[in-house]
Amino acid sequence: MESEAHRFQVQVYYEDTDHSGVVYHANYLKYFERAREAVIGPAELVRLWKEAGLGFAVYRAEVGYQDGAEFGETLEIRSRVRKDSDYRLVWHQEAWRPGGRKPAVKAEIHLVCIDRHKNLRPIPPTAAAG
Amino acid sequence: MESEAHRFQVQVYYEDTDHSGVVYHANYLKYFERAREAVIGPAELVRLWKEAGLGFAVYRAEVGYQDGAEFGETLEIRSRVRKDSDYRLVWHQEAWRPGGRKPAVKAEIHLVCIDRHKNLRPIPPTAAAG
Amino acid sequence: MESEAHRFQVQVYYEDTDHSGVVYHANYLKYFERAREAVIGPAELVRLWKEAGLGFAVYRAEVGYQDGAEFGETLEIRSRVRKDSDYRLVWHQEAWRPGGRKPAVKAEIHLVCIDRHKNLRPIPPTAAAG
Amino acid sequence: MESEAHRFQVQVYYEDTDHSGVVYHANYLKYFERAREAVIGPAELVRLWKEAGLGFAVYRAEVGYQDGAEFGETLEIRSRVRKDSDYRLVWHQEAWRPGGRKPAVKAEIHLVCIDRHKNLRPIPPTAAAG
Repeated sequence: MESEAHRFQVQVYYEDTDHSGVVYHANYLKYFERAREAVIGPAELVRLWKEAGLGFAVYRAEVGYQDGAEFGETLEIRSRVRKDSDYRLVWHQEAWRPGGRKPAVKAEIHLVCIDRHKNLRPIPPTAAAG
Repeated sequence: MESEAHRFQVQVYYEDTDHSGVVYHANYLKYFERAREAVIGPAELVRLWKEAGLGFAVYRAEVGYQDGAEFGETLEIRSRVRKDSDYRLVWHQEAWRPGGRKPAVKAEIHLVCIDRHKNLRPIPPTAAAG
Repeated sequence: MESEAHRFQVQVYYEDTDHSGVVYHANYLKYFERAREAVIGPAELVRLWKEAGLGFAVYRAEVGYQDGAEFGETLEIRSRVRKDSDYRLVWHQEAWRPGGRKPAVKAEIHLVCIDRHKNLRPIPPTAAAG
Repeated sequence: MESEAHRFQVQVYYEDTDHSGVVYHANYLKYFERAREAVIGPAELVRLWKEAGLGFAVYRAEVGYQDGAEFGETLEIRSRVRKDSDYRLVWHQEAWRPGGRKPAVKAEIHLVCIDRHKNLRPIPPTAAAG
């Protein structure tokens, strides 16, 4: 079962755009990750990393681009998560421009949990609460 | 029909990695784009942009991550392209670590051509030569 | 005369760090710019760009690094600005780690205003209010 | 005594530019670091990191921006280094646009060597050879 949608604001800065005038395509993956970190919580992510040696890695990303966000806009990232198995979180995430009637960018992101030796580990309960 | 595989080298610098010790996942999209630009040719891309107001936009990206590249490695990006329609190029791209037996990262990237007003335009012949 | 210090929060994400475990040195320039944009206001920056064709360019940057911020931290960026002449803004900016007793990074950043043809233009009054 | 100038090519990609049409100012710090890594050698940097736990950190950066590089250009990074003390390398680095008559960007970058606990360590001889 998927979680409620979490909402997260992202400001588009000079650094995010490219010379074509819109946000560089790879940067939406950064936005989506910032939003995921906000859902799980930076303190919990730091704790998992320092105490248990656990981190998250993107295993699969499918991204559809419909519209390009521009400098100065505040985007809303909407994120839903479900635990697909003991070893995989599936996130559905969207980036909305101000006043947009549909998402500018949509993504499905699969996350796994790995230890310091890059071995797969079960998803920690705190990360799946969504 | 898909083109022959083009090969392109990418060096992994400090800037590319994150604190988990491997290349940050969004950066492979940058590597794949550098490789596409090398195939089409920077001079031709500049000419299309300045003379015809044409640029390329990623419309869809599917990326599978199998292994994480590390600081100091030279990756090989292998790229194949086919023209899917007058309006879409489909690229299959892989990132190989040194001595790797399978690709560390695989992607399918769909490109469209747009003018300065973000209107779809036919793919220029020089960009589809692959 | 220099303005009061403006305070701006920055969250350190995976994307900001490198494999050495701390924030990649170039990224503090991004943080400082985000803070400057917050002082001037994104809406005003967009207006200057779209209506008057005016943007800002960094002309000089002096950055001193004392300590490295880590993943998961919330940094405070403290920014002061003074108008050095009709053509130059000088910013003093600092990045503070949580609980820090001195700034982790300090910078002096000189900004000029340029039009679309890269010609120098006087600093707009709205940008110098600080 | 300063070394001979090392020359290193950098290609300007979409990812490097911002919506003002030129290379984003922080990215020159990335270019300069790539050039420094090429001088020292990636293999030696990896060896120092893995075997001795040693890395390099930027302690001070002074950057002057005179001209903005554009998409599609190949820049030449010219780098000179001298060992200022047992604990500090000072690099003078410049970014030249194609056909430029003076550097587009000039920088003085001070590097220190640190171990995994962020303690200062003497500059390894292999890093000072320049």
